[in-house]
Amino acid sequence: MTQVSFERAEARLTELFAAAGASAANSASVAWALVMAEADGLKGHGLSRVPTYLAMLKAGKIDGQAVPKATRPKPGVLAIDAAHGFAYPAIDLAIVELPELVREQGVMAAPIRRSSHCGAAGLHVERLAEQGLVALLFANTPGAIAPWGGSKPVFGTNPIAFAAPLAGREPVVIDMALSKVARGPIVAARQKGQPIPEGWALDVDGKPTTDAAAALAGTMVPLGDAKGATLAMMVEILSAALVGAHFGFQASSFIDDKGGPPDTGQLILAIDPAAMGGNWFDERMRVLAHAIEEQEGTRLPGVRRLTLRAKARAEGIDMPAELLSD
Amino acid sequence: MTQVSFERAEARLTELFAAAGASAANSASVAWALVMAEADGLKGHGLSRVPTYLAMLKAGKIDGQAVPKATRPKPGVLAIDAAHGFAYPAIDLAIVELPELVREQGVMAAPIRRSSHCGAAGLHVERLAEQGLVALLFANTPGAIAPWGGSKPVFGTNPIAFAAPLAGREPVVIDMALSKVARGPIVAARQKGQPIPEGWALDVDGKPTTDAAAALAGTMVPLGDAKGATLAMMVEILSAALVGAHFGFQASSFIDDKGGPPDTGQLILAIDPAAMGGNWFDERMRVLAHAIEEQEGTRLPGVRRLTLRAKARAEGIDMPAELLSD
Repeated sequence: MTQVSFERAEARLTELFAAAGASAANSASVAWALVMAEADGLKGHGLSRVPTYLAMLKAGKIDGQAVPKATRPKPGVLAIDAAHGFAYPAIDLAIVELPELVREQGVMAAPIRRSSHCGAAGLHVERLAEQGLVALLFANTPGAIAPWGGSKPVFGTNPIAFAAPLAGREPVVIDMALSKVARGPIVAARQKGQPIPEGWALDVDGKPTTDAAAALAGTMVPLGDAKGATLAMMVEILSAALVGAHFGFQASSFIDDKGGPPDTGQLILAIDPAAMGGNWFDERMRVLAHAIEEQEGTRLPGVRRLTLRAKARAEGIDMPAELLSD
Repeated sequence: MTQVSFERAEARLTELFAAAGASAANSASVAWALVMAEADGLKGHGLSRVPTYLAMLKAGKIDGQAVPKATRPKPGVLAIDAAHGFAYPAIDLAIVELPELVREQGVMAAPIRRSSHCGAAGLHVERLAEQGLVALLFANTPGAIAPWGGSKPVFGTNPIAFAAPLAGREPVVIDMALSKVARGPIVAARQKGQPIPEGWALDVDGKPTTDAAAALAGTMVPLGDAKGATLAMMVEILSAALVGAHFGFQASSFIDDKGGPPDTGQLILAIDPAAMGGNWFDERMRVLAHAIEEQEGTRLPGVRRLTLRAKARAEGIDMPAELLSD
């Protein structure tokens, strides 16, 4: 491991993706997203993705030369075709175009199809909140969660991300997958030959299991059990049925180079708080933040990430040696 | 109890609300919503509300003569002032106006302020899905859930409702409060002097409790624990901060006649699936429904309600004698 600056890490990743066949613009977009996720402590969406992203590029599973295109089928819709490329350049396009359109319309929907892994979803909505908007992002991912009562994965772990501006402070940022726990700890338990806690996963018959291998062959327990499975279906409808994307159970893996493009989807909804009929938003947000923060033991969502990010900016991020040498 | 037809039940409730000072239009709107919730088996939002609604009307806590007003601050926004009245007439106004606007814009936001208890939230989005739209409704309710790690209620149980059309069939309808369980079973346990299961509620110090009285004095555990508390905050921002409504911790109770109007809020987001850049929605929804229903032990969200509704339509609904006599 070597500690390197954000700029150095971004430049190096950009170089690696370009060498694997991605355009300069796409390489820079992906490099930024991975470095930020790593800095924010979201390592599952950070540098750990580099080897699989490179393999997917080389196999043509992700089109590194893809140019995302936006159309405007209706005044309130910016429809984006990610064109079998990385999700990040398509999302960047939405983030560049949306603020002006939202200020004109009050609300905009940006469906993104033929897309892929969108990484740390909070990073995307955070950039909209920094421009004064309230934003939601729904994304689907390869099948991991079964419909409640069933045993076969239909829905992904399907993150919901949300951000809202907080006047004079960093935005509130929420980003949660709908599985009770991430897949990472289960993979780690299998490698160590250890059991997993009950309640994390179900086996191929839909029965609770503490065996990590059986869990990985089965499905993930959704947060809040039946209600979480229902939320995962809602996200699947918003980010895939509406958008024209593959469902979780149809999508190829985000973590290997097998099969065609994942072609998953994202839906961004962005709202201008100044367009809701009155000028109350900043005051309301201050009052809400105060009601939370005055209670001991609480914090606003996103604060931990910002603390880690500031530390990483000051001290650099840990970069594995194999990513630094050719 | 007397079994009466929907029409008879609606007519009788309309009469009761009008006698308590509500306008004819408001009385009919509230009567419809309560009868439908009762028919759908959602008794906590059904006839059980009649006595408190009448008391709130008589005390002036709800303005029975309120006329909801809509303005159009931006092309994508229909901002509704419920004017300290019932939520239902304000929501009805949104449901009448939105379909045409959404078909023109692609997406619309309808923030509703100075509102109150919106009952079975799924009923509202279901009516939009029946007109071909995908719809989300976020609502806040009086304080019940603490920020994670805290002990004082800030957020309500804050339902998320969602509906999507399913070509040739009834729409998919999702409607979930963000507390792990409803308050009703805890009230019932206290009345019977019974303990409640661990994991339902926290006492005034934020510690887990199995004592029903301590639970009612404390806070409700959100679904999925920390993640659910974060979702409750997201709904609070969408349905109150954005909309210009009271937060859960500021709102007066929905179940007594004490204090001023609750002045809670709702936010409806409605999307035209035909405006997303392609003609895939109906096929995508059929494929998703099939992937769920082919698995034994599963069902689409909303199906149980529809079964109960059909039974109630055939057999009538149970109406307590005290609601039938003057």
